Amino acid sequence: MTKKRIAILGSTGSIGTQAIEVIEANPDRFEVEILTANNNVDLLIAQARQVQPNMVVIANEQHYETLCEALENEPIKVYAGAEAIAQVVQVSTVDIVLTAMVGYSGLIPTIKAIEAGKHIALANKETLVVAGDIISKLAREKNVNIYPVDSEHSAIFQCLCGEMQNPMEKIYLTCSGGPFRGMSLEQLEKVTRDDALRHPNWDMGAKITIDSATLMNKGFEVIEAKWLFDLTPEQIDIIVHPQSIVHSIAQFEDGSMKAQMGLPDMKLPIIYAFSYPERLKTDFPRFNFLDYPTLTFEQPNLEVFRNAALAYQAMRKGGNLACTLNAANEVVVDAFLKEKISFLGMSDVIEKVMGKMDFIAAPTLNDYVETDKKARQLTCELI
Amino acid sequence: MTKKRIAILGSTGSIGTQAIEVIEANPDRFEVEILTANNNVDLLIAQARQVQPNMVVIANEQHYETLCEALENEPIKVYAGAEAIAQVVQVSTVDIVLTAMVGYSGLIPTIKAIEAGKHIALANKETLVVAGDIISKLAREKNVNIYPVDSEHSAIFQCLCGEMQNPMEKIYLTCSGGPFRGMSLEQLEKVTRDDALRHPNWDMGAKITIDSATLMNKGFEVIEAKWLFDLTPEQIDIIVHPQSIVHSIAQFEDGSMKAQMGLPDMKLPIIYAFSYPERLKTDFPRFNFLDYPTLTFEQPNLEVFRNAALAYQAMRKGGNLACTLNAANEVVVDAFLKEKISFLGMSDVIEKVMGKMDFIAAPTLNDYVETDKKARQLTCELI
Repeated sequence: MTKKRIAILGSTGSIGTQAIEVIEANPDRFEVEILTANNNVDLLIAQARQVQPNMVVIANEQHYETLCEALENEPIKVYAGAEAIAQVVQVSTVDIVLTAMVGYSGLIPTIKAIEAGKHIALANKETLVVAGDIISKLAREKNVNIYPVDSEHSAIFQCLCGEMQNPMEKIYLTCSGGPFRGMSLEQLEKVTRDDALRHPNWDMGAKITIDSATLMNKGFEVIEAKWLFDLTPEQIDIIVHPQSIVHSIAQFEDGSMKAQMGLPDMKLPIIYAFSYPERLKTDFPRFNFLDYPTLTFEQPNLEVFRNAALAYQAMRKGGNLACTLNAANEVVVDAFLKEKISFLGMSDVIEKVMGKMDFIAAPTLNDYVETDKKARQLTCELI
Repeated sequence: MTKKRIAILGSTGSIGTQAIEVIEANPDRFEVEILTANNNVDLLIAQARQVQPNMVVIANEQHYETLCEALENEPIKVYAGAEAIAQVVQVSTVDIVLTAMVGYSGLIPTIKAIEAGKHIALANKETLVVAGDIISKLAREKNVNIYPVDSEHSAIFQCLCGEMQNPMEKIYLTCSGGPFRGMSLEQLEKVTRDDALRHPNWDMGAKITIDSATLMNKGFEVIEAKWLFDLTPEQIDIIVHPQSIVHSIAQFEDGSMKAQMGLPDMKLPIIYAFSYPERLKTDFPRFNFLDYPTLTFEQPNLEVFRNAALAYQAMRKGGNLACTLNAANEVVVDAFLKEKISFLGMSDVIEKVMGKMDFIAAPTLNDYVETDKKARQLTCELI
C-alpha cells in the first residue's frame, strides 16, 4: 500500500495541528511532505522536527532566518514567502494538499495545486467563496477531487458517497447558532469581542469564531456548498441545531434524507478527506444517544444575523459579489477583534461595501484579486 | 430502458397495495408480472383487473373458482395453492420478487425465487428470522441481491450505499416504542387487544401491529439485520425514537454515523428496493424540520418488553431457536387477537416453548420445517 503524501498549508492552526495528529496516528497510510505556516515560527519549527517533512515554508519572510537556523541540522528544505507556498504545492511528491490557511490567502496556492493536478482537502472555505466558479471549473478540467474538510460539507460528501448518479433535491447545513443564538438586535448591540470569542461547543481560531458568532461562517458555507455540490441557492437551507450532533443532511429526489452525525470532532472530516473512499479505524470518542436524548432544530433568524442573509444575496447575484463580501468581512472581523467596530457594525459596513463596489458579472482571476484589494481599502475607509 | 418486472407476493396487504401504487406511478420503469394473495380474493380480483399481471395466485384454494370466474375474460393465468406460489416466482419473466406475505409462509417461495436467481425485495422479515443462515448463504451462491423493504433495514442499506468496503462498527435500529412505550409490567398486564391495535404512528396489518406493541417486531428486525448485514448481536442496538423520523443509523469504524431519515412512508423503501441503486423522483410528502423541532431517543426497557430480549437470546444461541421463537410468536399473536391469551402471557408462553423445544445447532431446511410445526403444536398446547 503506497502512502499518501500530504502538504499541510496552515500547519500551526487548529485544522493543521489536528491533521498532523491524524497523520501521525496512521504512519502506514500517510506522511507529511510539506508544512507551511503564516507567522507562528516556533510551532512550525517544533512540528518540522517532529514530523520531518521534506519542506517547510513560513509565509512571513521576517521569520526566515529563525527557521533556517533552527532546522539547519535537519534534512528539511526551508523557504519563505507567499510565492514559495504557491510553488511548493506543485512538487511531484505531493498527493493531497490540505488548504487550512485563514481567509483569502488560500486562493492562489489552491489554484496552483489544482493546476498541478493535486487533490485538495479543502479547509479554507474562503477559496470557494471568493472564486468558486474558477476553482470548480479548474478542478473539473484537471480531474482533481476536492474533499471538503468543513464538518458540514464533509457530512454532505459522506452522504453522497455511492449516490453520485442521484441528484440532490436540497441540503440542510446545520448550524450551532453560535454564542448569541436567540438574541435580538437590541441584545446584539451590546455584545463584545470577548463575548464572541467564547464559542459554546469547540475551540477554533479567532477569525472563524467571530464568523460563527455572526453566522457569516454559515453564510460562507452556503456559498461553499453551492460550488462543491453544484446547487442553486434555493436548494440550500440553514437549520440551527444547537447540539451539533447532526453535521448536515442531504435530501434526494425520492424524498429520502441522509444525515451524517457524531460527536463534533474535526479529526473525522480530516481523516475522511485523506482516506476517501475508505474509512480508517479511529479511536475518536463515539457518540452515545443516551448522552444526547434530545436533538433540536430551529430556523435561523436572518433578520437578526444579517451576515448570513448578505451571503445568500451575494450567492444569488454571483459575479465578484461574494469576493467583495469576503474581503469586507476579513477587514471588519479584524477591526472587531481590535475593538474598533461593534458587532452589528460589521454587517452595516459589509452591506455598504457590497453596495458601493463595481459589480463584475464574469470575473477573471485578476478581477478577483483587484476586487479583493479594492474592497479591503473601501472597508478600511468606511470603518 | 427495460422495465423491471415484479412479482408481488402478498399483494392485498399493506406493503402489497403500496407496491402497486409505486409501480403504477412509474409505468416506464416497472410492471407487475405476478400478484399473489392469501385469502382476500375480492381485492386480488380488483388488483388483477387494474394492473393486468401475467399471472395471479390465490393461496387459499377455496377461492380458486371465484378467481377463475372473475378473471375469465382477462388475459391472465390463474392458479391456487402454496405450491403454485413457489412455482410462479421462478418464471423467466420475473426480475424482482417482493415478499410481502405474513409470517412463516414467506419462507419457501423466497427460497424458490432465490434458487431461480431472482432478486428479492424482502418485506417478510420472518423469512430471515426463521432461516437466515440458509437464505443468506443461498443468496450469495446465486449472486442474488436482497433489498430490504423494512424501513429500518432500508435505512441501513441506504447508508451503506457506496460504503461496501467499509465495515460497520455497529447499527442502531430505531423503534417507535409502540403504543405501550413507558408502561410498567403492572400496566401491561391490563392492556387489551384493542389497545394494542391502535398503533400511534401508522397503519399496518394486525399481526405486525401486535408485534410492534410487544417489541417482537423489533426483536425480529434485530435478527434480520444480523443476516442482512453480517453483524454480531453486540453490534446491533435498539434505540427508541417515538417520532419515527430517523429510520436507523449505521456507525462505521472511523466513528462516523450515517442516518437515513424522513417522514414515515413505506412507499420509499419499496421504491428504493425496486430502483436501487438509482433513486426515482417521487411526490411523497417531504419532511420539514419545523414540523419536528425535537427528535428524542431513549433506551428500550427489555425487562418490560421481554419479547425483544427473547429475540436477542435466540440470535445469540443461533441454530433453530429463532425459528422456534417465530413459530411460537405467530401462534400466541393469533391467540391474543382472538383474546385467548393476555399481553404478558404471550412472552411467558414463547419463553416456555423456547425452553422445551429440542435445540438443533446446524439445522437443514427440513429441520426448520419440522421445528416450525412442532413449536406451533407445543405453543397451542401451552396456551
